[in-house]
Amino acid sequence: MIIVLRPDVTEQEFQHIIEKIESKGMRVHVSRGTERTIIGAIGDESALRELPLEALPGVEKVMPVLKPFKLASRDFHPEKTIIKLRDFEIGGPEIIVAAGPCSVERGDSLIRTARAVKKAGAKLLRAGAFKPRTSPYDFQGLGEEGLNLLAEAREETGLAIVTEVMETRTVEIVARYADVLQIGARNTQNFNLLMEVGQTDKPVLLKRGMSVSLKEFILAGEYIMNEGNHNVIFCERGIRTFETSTRNTLDISSVAILHYETHLPVWVDPSHAAGHWRWVNPLCRAAVAIGADGLIIEVHIDPENAWSDGVQSLRPEKFAELMKDIHKVAESVSRTISLGEES
Amino acid sequence: MIIVLRPDVTEQEFQHIIEKIESKGMRVHVSRGTERTIIGAIGDESALRELPLEALPGVEKVMPVLKPFKLASRDFHPEKTIIKLRDFEIGGPEIIVAAGPCSVERGDSLIRTARAVKKAGAKLLRAGAFKPRTSPYDFQGLGEEGLNLLAEAREETGLAIVTEVMETRTVEIVARYADVLQIGARNTQNFNLLMEVGQTDKPVLLKRGMSVSLKEFILAGEYIMNEGNHNVIFCERGIRTFETSTRNTLDISSVAILHYETHLPVWVDPSHAAGHWRWVNPLCRAAVAIGADGLIIEVHIDPENAWSDGVQSLRPEKFAELMKDIHKVAESVSRTISLGEES
Amino acid sequence: MIIVLRPDVTEQEFQHIIEKIESKGMRVHVSRGTERTIIGAIGDESALRELPLEALPGVEKVMPVLKPFKLASRDFHPEKTIIKLRDFEIGGPEIIVAAGPCSVERGDSLIRTARAVKKAGAKLLRAGAFKPRTSPYDFQGLGEEGLNLLAEAREETGLAIVTEVMETRTVEIVARYADVLQIGARNTQNFNLLMEVGQTDKPVLLKRGMSVSLKEFILAGEYIMNEGNHNVIFCERGIRTFETSTRNTLDISSVAILHYETHLPVWVDPSHAAGHWRWVNPLCRAAVAIGADGLIIEVHIDPENAWSDGVQSLRPEKFAELMKDIHKVAESVSRTISLGEES
Amino acid sequence: MIIVLRPDVTEQEFQHIIEKIESKGMRVHVSRGTERTIIGAIGDESALRELPLEALPGVEKVMPVLKPFKLASRDFHPEKTIIKLRDFEIGGPEIIVAAGPCSVERGDSLIRTARAVKKAGAKLLRAGAFKPRTSPYDFQGLGEEGLNLLAEAREETGLAIVTEVMETRTVEIVARYADVLQIGARNTQNFNLLMEVGQTDKPVLLKRGMSVSLKEFILAGEYIMNEGNHNVIFCERGIRTFETSTRNTLDISSVAILHYETHLPVWVDPSHAAGHWRWVNPLCRAAVAIGADGLIIEVHIDPENAWSDGVQSLRPEKFAELMKDIHKVAESVSRTISLGEES
Repeated sequence: MIIVLRPDVTEQEFQHIIEKIESKGMRVHVSRGTERTIIGAIGDESALRELPLEALPGVEKVMPVLKPFKLASRDFHPEKTIIKLRDFEIGGPEIIVAAGPCSVERGDSLIRTARAVKKAGAKLLRAGAFKPRTSPYDFQGLGEEGLNLLAEAREETGLAIVTEVMETRTVEIVARYADVLQIGARNTQNFNLLMEVGQTDKPVLLKRGMSVSLKEFILAGEYIMNEGNHNVIFCERGIRTFETSTRNTLDISSVAILHYETHLPVWVDPSHAAGHWRWVNPLCRAAVAIGADGLIIEVHIDPENAWSDGVQSLRPEKFAELMKDIHKVAESVSRTISLGEES
Repeated sequence: MIIVLRPDVTEQEFQHIIEKIESKGMRVHVSRGTERTIIGAIGDESALRELPLEALPGVEKVMPVLKPFKLASRDFHPEKTIIKLRDFEIGGPEIIVAAGPCSVERGDSLIRTARAVKKAGAKLLRAGAFKPRTSPYDFQGLGEEGLNLLAEAREETGLAIVTEVMETRTVEIVARYADVLQIGARNTQNFNLLMEVGQTDKPVLLKRGMSVSLKEFILAGEYIMNEGNHNVIFCERGIRTFETSTRNTLDISSVAILHYETHLPVWVDPSHAAGHWRWVNPLCRAAVAIGADGLIIEVHIDPENAWSDGVQSLRPEKFAELMKDIHKVAESVSRTISLGEES
Repeated sequence: MIIVLRPDVTEQEFQHIIEKIESKGMRVHVSRGTERTIIGAIGDESALRELPLEALPGVEKVMPVLKPFKLASRDFHPEKTIIKLRDFEIGGPEIIVAAGPCSVERGDSLIRTARAVKKAGAKLLRAGAFKPRTSPYDFQGLGEEGLNLLAEAREETGLAIVTEVMETRTVEIVARYADVLQIGARNTQNFNLLMEVGQTDKPVLLKRGMSVSLKEFILAGEYIMNEGNHNVIFCERGIRTFETSTRNTLDISSVAILHYETHLPVWVDPSHAAGHWRWVNPLCRAAVAIGADGLIIEVHIDPENAWSDGVQSLRPEKFAELMKDIHKVAESVSRTISLGEES
Repeated sequence: MIIVLRPDVTEQEFQHIIEKIESKGMRVHVSRGTERTIIGAIGDESALRELPLEALPGVEKVMPVLKPFKLASRDFHPEKTIIKLRDFEIGGPEIIVAAGPCSVERGDSLIRTARAVKKAGAKLLRAGAFKPRTSPYDFQGLGEEGLNLLAEAREETGLAIVTEVMETRTVEIVARYADVLQIGARNTQNFNLLMEVGQTDKPVLLKRGMSVSLKEFILAGEYIMNEGNHNVIFCERGIRTFETSTRNTLDISSVAILHYETHLPVWVDPSHAAGHWRWVNPLCRAAVAIGADGLIIEVHIDPENAWSDGVQSLRPEKFAELMKDIHKVAESVSRTISLGEES
């Protein structure tokens, strides 16, 4: 920790600051410059985290030296983490695609969509049984009935299941059905939920919240890892900015930065970033080119009659085209994408 | 709902759009302009909410006509809601102040802080027993032990208690102790939690999330009201922007807009917006001048030794000064603020 | 300047970094901590500004110690700057109000508005002869004809004139007519323009750009001061965020921060922040309460027929009410506001 | 234009609104729904632009129907614009790369960099002779001396020149030397400058401002086109958001949206978005994959001694690698990139 003192700091204030730092078991290292005196606090920086140094008289600003995360950090774990699931690997050379409708619906739309995305090369089926909706008047999901429908679709198609868990009380039941637990963008900093999924043995697809910085995002992953579950997948899905042409602004740079800072797989959700199916194909191409390890894409057999998010859902034929397009981009960056039965 | 068609829309596409709208029981009203044809969909707009009109061929854009909220809307409830609590009212002419430490701590800091804020005019004691922390390595709160300490402080001082509830599983226990349930900024769109507190009979102080628009904020309140609990207090606490001089950017305009759009009380949390005690006094003056119905302020008997958020906590003497300052501003806008025993 | 090294920095990289810093005439101060080695570069920090330290192998991050501005800084000029203009002072105990239409129009609307705002207590008349418009198809201002109309209004009413200058070529002519030169929000970082107005002897009202940080804002003022013109007035007018309920988000905290960091007067423009006259009165109350030294407000004798910005313009009677309202708030924070002939 | 009325609108207010609209030569079309009455104003929407409908009593909101731009719109010009320059085309199947140092420097760094980027396949040399700098204390460029150095580099290498013009007074001289005029991000809405370059016959590379929406960005291009110069190239270079890991947040989606809405070429500047050379290669891959027509990249023969922006400048050998990487990505999306003498 570096503490920059005000030019008018008094000797008494200075001594008080030194004592405060030493009281936490840190050593101090003072450097008197031409315009400012600087204190370096040496030792375990986390001991100082709660100390309100910035409020002490005479302090101008406080600058942490260390990154606040450890378990997720590439500094301590240089090799990339690979998560094995059924017959594929997340984080390896193959780019994995999860696809499916926004929410599990009754009738045959789920299974028909599942068959179609499987055929085009998807490895996981995505669909929500528990749905976070901005309005209380919108469809809230089928709950356990939906989980059963997902299990049936897995049974028939062999696709793995990724589905959202919204609260601590339902972690157990969702974990019973799902292959991958999804944490939605509104729950990225729902710390109780993070701790709860950290106690399961299921990989967690952690979506980035709309106003969550990359540092905070990694710390959210750290919450899960700190409970013992190291199979965390970061998923960029767009942040909130002033631009309204897309539902959110896909922060494509985050893929490169998360790979640099952490050893965990990084996915991209183009559908929620875009908010319209028209932009999903171009965003997927960009995501693959920059190095995403996976994509999670909304596909519906009949978007016009989808129960939610129809605007941003691809039809199966558009999805099959997309898979061929990104297959080529993947090869250009020395990665692979499975094209399923169509390849 | 207004549907603007593309200039190159075909007759077949046009008919398909009409049929889609009529299939939801709406009437259509077509207006052919010089450059665009426009369809007005007349009837219950919520029937169209899930219809992916924007994805239909021939549609350029879709513009909703109605506001998505009802229970919170001033259109349907012109008089301001007043929430009665112990010996005071929230939403009436008196501006109510809640004050106290960030988190409940062991020892006598809580009770000493409580006595001090009571003396200066605060009506509620704020302090967290369950704490949402960005890092898993930070202090997470005392849990039920903290709730007991809060109850003891209430017993002695007569202050009402406002404290945060973080997840559905602890709503019952927090509601047993608290006078007002606080929903934190990271849970504004934790819909399960909103529904759960909506089933209690305790007023809810709902903080605005860092990237939650005012429309979404009101809808979050609507979630609570939709379960039967109409005692919702909106609390502006700063939004996330590019500016880093303050921890968050206090969106002061939101107070005026929330009062215009809804009938519910609106509070301001200057401490989390500011991130430094130095800006708390000026932000409180602005909040009172613009019409806030209440303030929730971090105060600690000894900020240098606070277990969390010491930087943004006021000392009791600064808090007493602040109360006098905002008392004057309150009078200038025809409101009152109690000055406690010191008045 | 503090340079934090990577944990895997090599001795050769370390030496190279040291040499680079010393080559700029700085001394180095090395501190080896448990997890990182830190270099303090001591001397004139500006010498290092152009050195791409962050790109050197072995460097993890670079943290500047000093603030990048001097002339505007309160550290070097503790007393508040007061700008004298005609019969009043900007930056003193009196809060100064500039009011008038968005743009100078032909006909008698300007002079009628000028009379009305004068009567209610305004000290300056605001109106644009050169107008920055988002669309090339919108009214672009009357140019020098408008400046003449402003001069006539000053002649009759005694109001000082504040009007916008948009480019270097017209600085001379605008300065010939105006009492205060206004730099608009889209030109906050138009550095040539800043330097040009810095060479005039007219005070400059510098508006904050929509995405300009406070640090950059102060540096923009520094550009003007660096040319010799120290009469700079900062004007907060809202920043661009995700929230769309108001045209921009008024960053009310900036008033307190600019006063803390600099010695220059700080004004607020509630009209452009709000984008609707309805929010102008509440925002003015907040601005006065937090300590603004002045306000610049759009007023039009007949907003329905204004040539631009009619939505956010107050009618004269609403403006007179506003002056009375903020007069009371000003007194509550020990400031004054003139109420003109009506007082 | 659609005007939604308040539920409590009076007959008198209603009549007044109708008259206002008709006074502008528009026809009205009234639709009375169950909850709101809606007025459609039919005719030339631009006639209503200045009418402050939103401020009229009884109006709840106003929704424009048409896009505010015409010349840039793909609706009126379906084929993509191709700009011919020396021996290459911008906007055609080949992706064009401009590369070079941030600013023109004395000595041989410019010419050595020019030779290197030429050899790797760049078609244009970029470098600033006039530099916009956040601080008045930073290097401001060599001015006309720099333009001469650029001309010499063109003479020797055959590279075309793209260089920034910062103000109306220097448009003529910069246009005399440059092949493409660059408008920087701080001048995207410097309307006088846009009009001035619109009167030259040189193509204009228009960078997106940090807080400029895509609609405003297209309107800025429209300003140039409206003066007769239709050779506008849009250049995404990152927007300002809360995220600080990169200097700006590259809004990669904008490439797809600008191509959909307009017929003009779209480029990407990865260097200013990233702020660090490390992210330039991945961002270029993403830009090419999503469909950018060109890239403008900072390259310096010796970044450690660059006069500005050394942190984000690539060394020539990294640039040559990058060209090979994006060459492969370009082929995967059916585009080409020249690899210069190395191919």
